[in-house]
Amino acid sequence: MTTTPPTRENPIPAARIVGDLPTADAATAAETVGEEATLFVSGFGGVGYPKSVPEMIAAGDHRWLTVIPGGGVGDEIDTALVESGDMDRRYPFQTRPTARDAINAGEVAFHDRHIADVADDVRFDGLRAGVRGERVAVVEAVAVGPDWLVPTTSVGNTPAFVRAADRIIVEVNTAQPLDLSRVHDVYTRADPPARGPIPLSTPAERIGSPAIRFDPDDLAAVVRTNRRDDPYEFRDPNDTDQAIAAHLQTFLTAEIARNPLFSDAVTLQFGVGSLGNALMSALTELDIGDRPLVYFGEVIQDGLLDMVDAGRLAGASATSLALSADGQDRLFEDVSRYAEEVVLRPGAVSNAAGPIDRFGVAAVNSAVEVDLHGNANATHIGGTHVLNGIGGSGDFVRNARLSIITLPATAADGDISRIVPATGHVDHTDHDVDVVVTEHGVADLRGLSLRERAAALVDIADPAYSSELEEYRERVSKESGAAPMGREMGVDL
Amino acid sequence: MTTTPPTRENPIPAARIVGDLPTADAATAAETVGEEATLFVSGFGGVGYPKSVPEMIAAGDHRWLTVIPGGGVGDEIDTALVESGDMDRRYPFQTRPTARDAINAGEVAFHDRHIADVADDVRFDGLRAGVRGERVAVVEAVAVGPDWLVPTTSVGNTPAFVRAADRIIVEVNTAQPLDLSRVHDVYTRADPPARGPIPLSTPAERIGSPAIRFDPDDLAAVVRTNRRDDPYEFRDPNDTDQAIAAHLQTFLTAEIARNPLFSDAVTLQFGVGSLGNALMSALTELDIGDRPLVYFGEVIQDGLLDMVDAGRLAGASATSLALSADGQDRLFEDVSRYAEEVVLRPGAVSNAAGPIDRFGVAAVNSAVEVDLHGNANATHIGGTHVLNGIGGSGDFVRNARLSIITLPATAADGDISRIVPATGHVDHTDHDVDVVVTEHGVADLRGLSLRERAAALVDIADPAYSSELEEYRERVSKESGAAPMGREMGVDL
Repeated sequence: MTTTPPTRENPIPAARIVGDLPTADAATAAETVGEEATLFVSGFGGVGYPKSVPEMIAAGDHRWLTVIPGGGVGDEIDTALVESGDMDRRYPFQTRPTARDAINAGEVAFHDRHIADVADDVRFDGLRAGVRGERVAVVEAVAVGPDWLVPTTSVGNTPAFVRAADRIIVEVNTAQPLDLSRVHDVYTRADPPARGPIPLSTPAERIGSPAIRFDPDDLAAVVRTNRRDDPYEFRDPNDTDQAIAAHLQTFLTAEIARNPLFSDAVTLQFGVGSLGNALMSALTELDIGDRPLVYFGEVIQDGLLDMVDAGRLAGASATSLALSADGQDRLFEDVSRYAEEVVLRPGAVSNAAGPIDRFGVAAVNSAVEVDLHGNANATHIGGTHVLNGIGGSGDFVRNARLSIITLPATAADGDISRIVPATGHVDHTDHDVDVVVTEHGVADLRGLSLRERAAALVDIADPAYSSELEEYRERVSKESGAAPMGREMGVDL
Repeated sequence: MTTTPPTRENPIPAARIVGDLPTADAATAAETVGEEATLFVSGFGGVGYPKSVPEMIAAGDHRWLTVIPGGGVGDEIDTALVESGDMDRRYPFQTRPTARDAINAGEVAFHDRHIADVADDVRFDGLRAGVRGERVAVVEAVAVGPDWLVPTTSVGNTPAFVRAADRIIVEVNTAQPLDLSRVHDVYTRADPPARGPIPLSTPAERIGSPAIRFDPDDLAAVVRTNRRDDPYEFRDPNDTDQAIAAHLQTFLTAEIARNPLFSDAVTLQFGVGSLGNALMSALTELDIGDRPLVYFGEVIQDGLLDMVDAGRLAGASATSLALSADGQDRLFEDVSRYAEEVVLRPGAVSNAAGPIDRFGVAAVNSAVEVDLHGNANATHIGGTHVLNGIGGSGDFVRNARLSIITLPATAADGDISRIVPATGHVDHTDHDVDVVVTEHGVADLRGLSLRERAAALVDIADPAYSSELEEYRERVSKESGAAPMGREMGVDL
């Protein structure tokens, strides 16, 4: 039997384990992880992460671990390794309450990172002393060979992780269909300065192969598992989601009809989460004439499968099938069909600035709150307490040609306005936020001065807060007209 | 005589005015600008802007103008048109006190924009109602033909401006040497989604031609002028600048020696201004072994000419020769020699995300203040009063592989700390700022949690403020350890 990796032409691996590879049970593989180590783990959008080895690490001796997944992963990592006290550091994005609480209590050191940058962070020492001890990659695969593996429900930053690792432990998960090999397009970038552009000419084009390659000397153990992902459950769309979706749809329909950006195609991205999922689903009705509709984002959520099923999508590129359990069932039953439209790439490609710019992506992302200049806080409460992290939202908000932030006008059952005078943290600056949508309407901020932006944003705040916001706006506007403070301070840049 | 434009092979135009073109004096050309209009003007880094026509517009009837230069321009625009009351709106970056005061007083509506985005803002309606009335491009050239012009000391966003304009007025300035044609490399990008990558394989490669093309039907008038630019004067480096430069040099020398990012070349960018200029100049001494040193930024300042003269640069790419008057004299005396290393591109190319990422640029930019998370305010005092605008700093800070912020630890002769608990405005977020340098040292923030970042930043604050900052840091750190506020608030993204 050949041990060569599957290819774009012949995507299905010959077996789950191809060749004479060093197999081990999860406990034995876990024992090899030293007292101080960096765990690079597969996974993104809550799927495609290793399940058994992290649990066995948590059950074993105490360790000091830096844990770096592709993005959001399951409780086997972000609950078990936190509760066991083994997780000392964590990058770049997390969604589980246990990890979040430990981070906010100062028990786990965390810094959220742009998804597009994580591969380079690892390669070019962007995390410095955060990467400590032996570097061990623990990654899930549908199949593995002597120097290759095929990822499962997400690609994430696994190509960079297996390259950077001293040792690689592969969990071959038979609960993930071998057919998933059809959706992967692994293209890895060279180092600067001879890196070259990512050679994508259309968003869903294939430029790589289903397999991730690694140095065969680094393969330490192959562990068999048979466990489903434990993906996030998105809540059903509520009235507010539906009102936001309706405003977004009206805005996009008019914009697509008149803006030359959309002359030849409509390329969209949606952020992760219940609201994003609801918006994707609602946009099956979007009127775009006879233009092709393409998705170039980081996650495929259930709402996007609806659009595929409705024959509405000319292609969808992402790095994760961040589906609900039901969505996974739908996809797994007919991977071949979905693979005609859907392609998964490394996060360093799905979220790269170059293609987002070149394809003219219109990006739709959420935020915790937006200030009166249009700066968006997507990550922190009170300036100090992280929610999940920036994930890929900064990659898209910054590089999209049209960047839309959607959010409910209030939080906490109406007790807190999400349109605020000042945010406790800024993730997306006023330079990058073009349009803000709440259930009360659309603030098109393009071309407006900061004073004008403030007025437009007060208009889409919850009516219970608009007079208070308007008073603040008028007071600051009056005061700031008083003196050219910058020059008086004598700042000489 | 042929009227074809100069080419890369034959860069020198046959004459200042090539062909039978509609010439006019500045006053006559100015009179054709209607009561409500958008003026697209050339210029970037305080050079290469039209001088006579804007002055004549200011001297004429009252108008309501939106003024959009490539970047910073001279008093002929940002003083005269403000004092005359004709400037109603202004994008994207300004440096003159009169314009700044009018903006901060609410008399001129302003929004600063990323330089890389301005061309697309104009093309794809990113400024919406801010672009009003007839669109008139007023641009400076060393030479002009029926459907082309060669820019002077900056390229800026002139290619996008002449494309978007209804009418084009060209100032042919004989004070700018024809030889400047040798430094220009005008490459213009197609529209998304078929835009394709910018085909640069090395930072200073030439991929275009010296001439900017336009529709010959749009050429309304050619005006002869003979006036030097009025560039900014940079102050001499002071002790603080020199201390910052010394710390930067020590940091970069060690980083270049050990980080694989710099295995094959060192590609740097420096921000505009006196500090940036001082740093460039100081880095002529940087120890980089036998690696080539390349500049990929937006401006060529005097300090960079020093590096060219010292034979230290393998190439320098920018969009403006933002030189002092002395620096201009130096360059003008030997354009041919400097053109071997120096190339000017449109701002949409010099500042594009794709090449900055591909070349692995290490970016060095300044800020007004930095907060304890490493968020940088580069544009506003007190959150409301703009200084100059973000310019290209956001393009480089965001997309550089290693992003360094340099700033003096204090402002106002020591009365104000520039390391602060919170900034009034955020331009560069903690996700993007890797390293901060003051005269007191280097804070290498890579891989650190927000708490750890705060501690590292207190260490490089002015000693007069460090105990106060440390108290703040400890208090917040203790308080924020108390409760996982994010979940209690019930925010469901």
